[in-house]
Amino acid sequence: MLETTTSAIRPPDEAAMAAARELHGRLTKPAGSLGLLENLSVRLAGLAGACPPPVPEPAAVAIFAGDHGVHAQGVTPWPQEVTAQMIGNFLAGGAVVNAFARQAGASVTVVDVGVAHPLPAPASDLGAPRLIDASVRRGTRDLSVTAALTRDEALAAILTGVRVADELIDAGAGILLTGDMGIGNTTPAAALIAAFTGVDPLDSTGRGTGVDDATYAHKVAVVRAALARHTPDPADPLGVLAAVGGLEHAALAGLILGAAARRTPVLLDGVIAVSAALAAAAFAPDAVAAMVAGHRSAEPGATVALRHLGLDPLIDLGLRLGEGTGALLALPVVTGAVRVLHEVATFDSAGVAEK
Amino acid sequence: MLETTTSAIRPPDEAAMAAARELHGRLTKPAGSLGLLENLSVRLAGLAGACPPPVPEPAAVAIFAGDHGVHAQGVTPWPQEVTAQMIGNFLAGGAVVNAFARQAGASVTVVDVGVAHPLPAPASDLGAPRLIDASVRRGTRDLSVTAALTRDEALAAILTGVRVADELIDAGAGILLTGDMGIGNTTPAAALIAAFTGVDPLDSTGRGTGVDDATYAHKVAVVRAALARHTPDPADPLGVLAAVGGLEHAALAGLILGAAARRTPVLLDGVIAVSAALAAAAFAPDAVAAMVAGHRSAEPGATVALRHLGLDPLIDLGLRLGEGTGALLALPVVTGAVRVLHEVATFDSAGVAEK
Repeated sequence: MLETTTSAIRPPDEAAMAAARELHGRLTKPAGSLGLLENLSVRLAGLAGACPPPVPEPAAVAIFAGDHGVHAQGVTPWPQEVTAQMIGNFLAGGAVVNAFARQAGASVTVVDVGVAHPLPAPASDLGAPRLIDASVRRGTRDLSVTAALTRDEALAAILTGVRVADELIDAGAGILLTGDMGIGNTTPAAALIAAFTGVDPLDSTGRGTGVDDATYAHKVAVVRAALARHTPDPADPLGVLAAVGGLEHAALAGLILGAAARRTPVLLDGVIAVSAALAAAAFAPDAVAAMVAGHRSAEPGATVALRHLGLDPLIDLGLRLGEGTGALLALPVVTGAVRVLHEVATFDSAGVAEK
Repeated sequence: MLETTTSAIRPPDEAAMAAARELHGRLTKPAGSLGLLENLSVRLAGLAGACPPPVPEPAAVAIFAGDHGVHAQGVTPWPQEVTAQMIGNFLAGGAVVNAFARQAGASVTVVDVGVAHPLPAPASDLGAPRLIDASVRRGTRDLSVTAALTRDEALAAILTGVRVADELIDAGAGILLTGDMGIGNTTPAAALIAAFTGVDPLDSTGRGTGVDDATYAHKVAVVRAALARHTPDPADPLGVLAAVGGLEHAALAGLILGAAARRTPVLLDGVIAVSAALAAAAFAPDAVAAMVAGHRSAEPGATVALRHLGLDPLIDLGLRLGEGTGALLALPVVTGAVRVLHEVATFDSAGVAEK
């Protein structure tokens, strides 16, 4: 089934991109004056195979949640229970992702792909985020001592991501936004980024939610040891995800592949999302055409991954929260870039002289 | 009357800022994980004198339009008629600012403070942008040969800006966004920025809507000659605006002062806005507390002015369109920053453990 998805991912449509470039030259604004928004709208035309591409709405945030065996190594000061507690917060509408989603008019879907602790009962009211139980196992194994997942477990999480993409798009979503929750999940993200890009763990590892110098040095050592133990092969993304990944990372890779197969843009959040995006690109290089980098996370590995993918982030405000918050802040930029192609008058139609 | 406005501008409320910082530490997110949004929300608490500060909505864009005698020097390849034609485009809803304002739910008000050519009749439908006729004169004089404005003319434009701020806030606006239209208006902006910050015209002058190397060199020379002729004194902002400014620049300075006097945030667009913001800060240094830098324009003078004002831009996408477009793209970031203080649960209330 993953092969069905990856083989459906096609290169961008050059004719639609050329049409978007040509249209930009006729709109009532100086050529190039919308900067990166022009490139973005051209890319989305290529993805959709149409100029103008559809306005990317409504938006749907998918938050994949999982826990991590490597938590036992002391890579974060937060207790593992917080993953489940924060899911309760999401379902009650009390997290930052909820506030930003309400503002943006985006739906929120929480997917348990591997939370270790029992989840609270979902809220009963109609507007509350939906919770999907797709747990593969109650947290990964400790990647510093063994493979985090079997290949079958990693594949199951990927296929959950593909299925969620399909469901959200079938329900009408015009753009998917990546979200994540998982105490300790910047450690596997750092390992994935090092594995796929070849950088040293020192350059792919950050302070996550904020660790002290000693914990940071230990975290880098854990990532380095894991890579030395597993020697993951970047040409085998399933193997990389199984060895040093997380269930939410694998599911996000699936979400991205699922969106790309449906020619639907997927707006990436922070370091967890871009580490998953590297895996998606390893499965299907043309999936990059569906990716929009929402923001530049404060995590250094995010910048490494974005450079590797050739993506320019839309927002750069030092965010390092995750959940999908950076993607949600960038959403109006994406929508605006496309609306320009739909709504702005041409010099000719508006009777405005050119230079 | 300007003295009434400037004397109403007070320093930020330190107690409200301290309360916002303290609240951020209790919300369900790692401390500092919202990066610059946290600083922004703290600043807005200080401006409002309340924690949380009011959510800054609805938003109102005020586009001040004027023409420029220096156009005769060939500083831009665009014909001067385009200023009036683009106002027609604004009123018909066909410009980029209209598309972004519709998306953001912001109203658009166009204010003629000095357009040289006859304006088209305003659209009759109810949702169309409003046009205010507050023309001081049909374009400035050529600042390269004489003062662009008399002091009385500059003051009249400033007071128009103050009045528009008051009207929009009285009508319910929670945040004002600066917009501008005026073929040739990056030349006076470059002169204002050099005059207020002391940088060389080479560092404050950009290519505006896109001029070739020869025109650019000529534009820098025009700015340099104007400054040498008028030797404007930055301690006399009215004199600076009269000597080398524009009517829309003066009106924007007034809008900013008017917003600051009402403790209402004003979201700055590009290089025209920040050149006006320098004038506003020269009239009343505490007006800076009301300013939010929407984006970093591609115009180099914008970065010079933002540094002088101590403001960090929210968006940096290489835009150089003006009209208010960069401010509109940044609006959801501002609103989101404040909504966090209103809507996000605390660790205590959500039952989430801390590290």
